Amino acid sequence: MSASSEGTVVEALRWREGRLELIDQRFLPSRFDYVRCTNAADVAEAIRSMVVRGAPAIGCAAAFGIALEAHRQQDRRPREFHAAMEAAFKALAASRPTAVNLFWALERMRSALTVHRDNPKSAAAKLAEVALAIFQADLETNRAIGRAGMKHVPDGARILTHCNTGALATAGHGTALGVVRSARDAGKHISVIASETRPYLQGARLTAWELIQEKIPVTLITDNMAGHFMSQGKVDIVIVGADRIAANGDVANKIGTYPLAVLAQRHRIPFYVAAPLSTIDLKTANGKAIPIEERSASEVTGYAGVRWAPDGVAVANPAFDITPAKLVGALFTERGVTKRPNAAKIRDLFKR
Amino acid sequence: MSASSEGTVVEALRWREGRLELIDQRFLPSRFDYVRCTNAADVAEAIRSMVVRGAPAIGCAAAFGIALEAHRQQDRRPREFHAAMEAAFKALAASRPTAVNLFWALERMRSALTVHRDNPKSAAAKLAEVALAIFQADLETNRAIGRAGMKHVPDGARILTHCNTGALATAGHGTALGVVRSARDAGKHISVIASETRPYLQGARLTAWELIQEKIPVTLITDNMAGHFMSQGKVDIVIVGADRIAANGDVANKIGTYPLAVLAQRHRIPFYVAAPLSTIDLKTANGKAIPIEERSASEVTGYAGVRWAPDGVAVANPAFDITPAKLVGALFTERGVTKRPNAAKIRDLFKR
Repeated sequence: MSASSEGTVVEALRWREGRLELIDQRFLPSRFDYVRCTNAADVAEAIRSMVVRGAPAIGCAAAFGIALEAHRQQDRRPREFHAAMEAAFKALAASRPTAVNLFWALERMRSALTVHRDNPKSAAAKLAEVALAIFQADLETNRAIGRAGMKHVPDGARILTHCNTGALATAGHGTALGVVRSARDAGKHISVIASETRPYLQGARLTAWELIQEKIPVTLITDNMAGHFMSQGKVDIVIVGADRIAANGDVANKIGTYPLAVLAQRHRIPFYVAAPLSTIDLKTANGKAIPIEERSASEVTGYAGVRWAPDGVAVANPAFDITPAKLVGALFTERGVTKRPNAAKIRDLFKR
Repeated sequence: MSASSEGTVVEALRWREGRLELIDQRFLPSRFDYVRCTNAADVAEAIRSMVVRGAPAIGCAAAFGIALEAHRQQDRRPREFHAAMEAAFKALAASRPTAVNLFWALERMRSALTVHRDNPKSAAAKLAEVALAIFQADLETNRAIGRAGMKHVPDGARILTHCNTGALATAGHGTALGVVRSARDAGKHISVIASETRPYLQGARLTAWELIQEKIPVTLITDNMAGHFMSQGKVDIVIVGADRIAANGDVANKIGTYPLAVLAQRHRIPFYVAAPLSTIDLKTANGKAIPIEERSASEVTGYAGVRWAPDGVAVANPAFDITPAKLVGALFTERGVTKRPNAAKIRDLFKR
């Protein structure tokens, strides 16, 4: 049994019997390696340390982490198996706090486990099946998001995007970058402006790299240049992904998203969010209730062993910010385009 | 004859008979060295390569560059002296295009030269005197800016600043950071949020370092975090410097300034610009007429020999952006506070 994101160049996750292989995104593009995970703790550490990142990819990885642990523990007695699985759920749930796809995937895995809890072997088989289904569904979902979103991408559009929302951030194809791929595949002559996305440089390292692989024209800028290019009329639309969308449509996404939305509004540039329904958290009323992960100071003070900030400086490193729903022109999901999202429209999405 | 910015900890420029010593700001804070310049070409190269940067410091350095060249050429015949000085003016004027203090200082030096053009020795003596006067006046000017601006800094203020506008960017004390220094010296309990200022990291490398030297509390953030902290109510005022202010009050300053002004407006946070009159260019009608320097791609694709962007990626690197006058709450100059600057108020500043 193996999973691969057919039709996409980059495979962030590869599932093999008894192991999960993850492209090590910490060192791309200067080094291309796979990290192998054989249990839930490996996967939790890979998520925490950002070997794998991107809300949908984190969800898939967590599901595979549960499947790996079940495979490893399947010869134990039900009670021991259950204890081991509880520890696995706990470790994975604690890996990163903001992306809700993680909790959504763990919830689905827990439901599957509950049905088969008295038989470790059949539980392990079922959990592997569900993890694979989550992965394959994410790929299909991204293609549906791409088909929906690309209608809003004019031919010739210069698209600003932030962070990485491509094949590397998902099971394949991508969310915001999936819309870009779908538009290109439909014959639209688009080009991308990729903001580098400090501090972790996902735009410079991952998005630029993915787009070069796909021969989609890309220009790299620092995050603080977006306003300049918008004011010069050089950005036609902005498309970003999301790590969690609250019930009212507020969007938690990579730090730096909110300023792009504010600037886009000022310059009357459409601002779109592309994300699967698994990113929407109906239990979180609004953006204020979304927990914002604070990451290590070392991500801000330097890169790859080179330190540029002075010793002893205090640092803040929130990994996400909140874009109010009012700044979102449309939400692209696998259920289509939701213009000017709000609580009522988001509730309706789940009723279709 | 020597110049030193008495009372400030950091001396970006040190003037000695026959040479100019510049702190090499390319490698701060990891390496602290002085670069010695003995002629105009040395100084032009130091400005171009950003050994010395910051609009007022560039103006002072250019003036010293002319003085150095005159000193070196003073034994030549008037005609040869004149040709050498013309080449010096040309090299220095071509070093960087945006900061107008450079051209302002060269203009002053040219006037002094014109008076003494038939006598190289007396011209050299006069030019050294004028360069030193420009340097000393800049220091006095910055203190006056600080006195004016600090009235708008509430006790306990959390001040967001961008790039470096401190002693390193001027003859001493600083412009925007001079206001911070003056407020602290007046007993106000202020703290600073320094945006790192990609791509050249002047905030992370220089502002954080200067403030630590001065024991002023500072928190380093990436540029794209400013919106998050404003939305959380953690920024009380924004103060930035300027590289050129047009006749209508539009401000060219380090790339990333414009988004801060837009975000500050949204959150009703006062946005102030601190700059000497030598930064105001009455000959430039508005921001659109200000030339924006495009710098090397290598500043964006990595740092200090570490490259993180993929090979072959296209890069944009405009060094400055334009903040419309309408977003500027007040301009702090050596002539006081100009609220909501516009063309008429700026003309008036020069009549006082």
